[in-house]
Amino acid sequence: MVTKNQIKLVVNLKQKKYRTQHGLFVVEGEKTVSELLNAGVKPFGLFVDAVEKGADFNNPELVSSAILKQMSSLSSPNGVLGVFHIPVLKSIDETDWVVALDAVRDPGNLGTIIRLCDWFGIPNLVCSQDTVDCFNPKVLQATMGSIARVNVTYADLEVYLKKTALPVYGAFMDGDSVYQQKLPPKGVLVMGNEANGVSETVGGLVTSRISIPQYGKTTTESLNVATATAILLNEIRR
Amino acid sequence: MVTKNQIKLVVNLKQKKYRTQHGLFVVEGEKTVSELLNAGVKPFGLFVDAVEKGADFNNPELVSSAILKQMSSLSSPNGVLGVFHIPVLKSIDETDWVVALDAVRDPGNLGTIIRLCDWFGIPNLVCSQDTVDCFNPKVLQATMGSIARVNVTYADLEVYLKKTALPVYGAFMDGDSVYQQKLPPKGVLVMGNEANGVSETVGGLVTSRISIPQYGKTTTESLNVATATAILLNEIRR
Repeated sequence: MVTKNQIKLVVNLKQKKYRTQHGLFVVEGEKTVSELLNAGVKPFGLFVDAVEKGADFNNPELVSSAILKQMSSLSSPNGVLGVFHIPVLKSIDETDWVVALDAVRDPGNLGTIIRLCDWFGIPNLVCSQDTVDCFNPKVLQATMGSIARVNVTYADLEVYLKKTALPVYGAFMDGDSVYQQKLPPKGVLVMGNEANGVSETVGGLVTSRISIPQYGKTTTESLNVATATAILLNEIRR
Repeated sequence: MVTKNQIKLVVNLKQKKYRTQHGLFVVEGEKTVSELLNAGVKPFGLFVDAVEKGADFNNPELVSSAILKQMSSLSSPNGVLGVFHIPVLKSIDETDWVVALDAVRDPGNLGTIIRLCDWFGIPNLVCSQDTVDCFNPKVLQATMGSIARVNVTYADLEVYLKKTALPVYGAFMDGDSVYQQKLPPKGVLVMGNEANGVSETVGGLVTSRISIPQYGKTTTESLNVATATAILLNEIRR
């Protein structure tokens, strides 16, 4: 039996302050919930639509569609909702490439970038404090299960970049072509804000400014930060 | 003076049937409207918030914020709304790469892919009839001004792929690594649906099945279709 307080807790977890206060976050969908369980992320509660037959979890709480709709962030809930403990952060491992984000605000972009880090085996993602929260429901919707496999840390980027022993690469519209670079086996890749790119203070700590060449007619457009990250991580790994 | 009928027309243009009926579409934002004007797309009407100072168009209709809000697809309208004539399609030019989309449903994905075609100088995008409409407001929001520079055609993909003289490449999870391919100077790149990939019938017409290698641990995840397109177009052009 789900209590009113449980429903209220799940609804509150849409807000960052409650996620921080309770150390909990919510994901939806059987596949994502399964991936988090498989990755060893500790569940706090699993809620499954009683009329759904598919979901096969250990002791889920069976709830009505109406209750699930109350809890869900989605306009059409998909039958499974899991509340998980926010994992304890590991320290940033500098034996491989690290992606650093400077004020990325769009949840879909952050979610896609986490999924890309997972695909390309980038173990660590460092976000500036003003980057969108990685446990935001829209971020989690875009990451699929990847959040379980990438260590996402929030830090003062200036402090981190001053401290790191790795070479620091940054994506700039006017940087040198990434095709002409010999990229090292490890480094930091800094990606900037959707509208303003890498900020001046963070940009001052970048040692190599790189760009993705535009083909054909040059326009004022830039690439979306998630697609630019896809291309640069592919260049790093190929 | 804006009439009630004009407002109703703009609101109706959110739906594909009215866009087809009137041969008109709507874009919002000064930058996108400017890019369409610069590209020679014929305006039908330009509506500018009377309190906005920035927009510098020839004879715009000045409207109140309240009227603009009624017309807009955005929760916070950005001061400029343009109604344009849907351009007359050019025939598909096969002197360069062509991107073909098989049932891409998400407007953000299609918008991002149009923007990528523009960036990488791909002049033609062919969409299956069940791909989301490129004049959908959410698609246009994601394309920025790129819609003016890419020729987007809707066609029966099977018919098109049977007819083309170009080699047909397709993205598949189990395809050969794109890193090991010698990609020709022109061809067709087929990208599939978000959930199901390239359909069986279209897949049967693909001559080379390619994939983006996953780095590190293999998971069941796939890349988002827009990020996969970004990486493959970069591979084609680099």
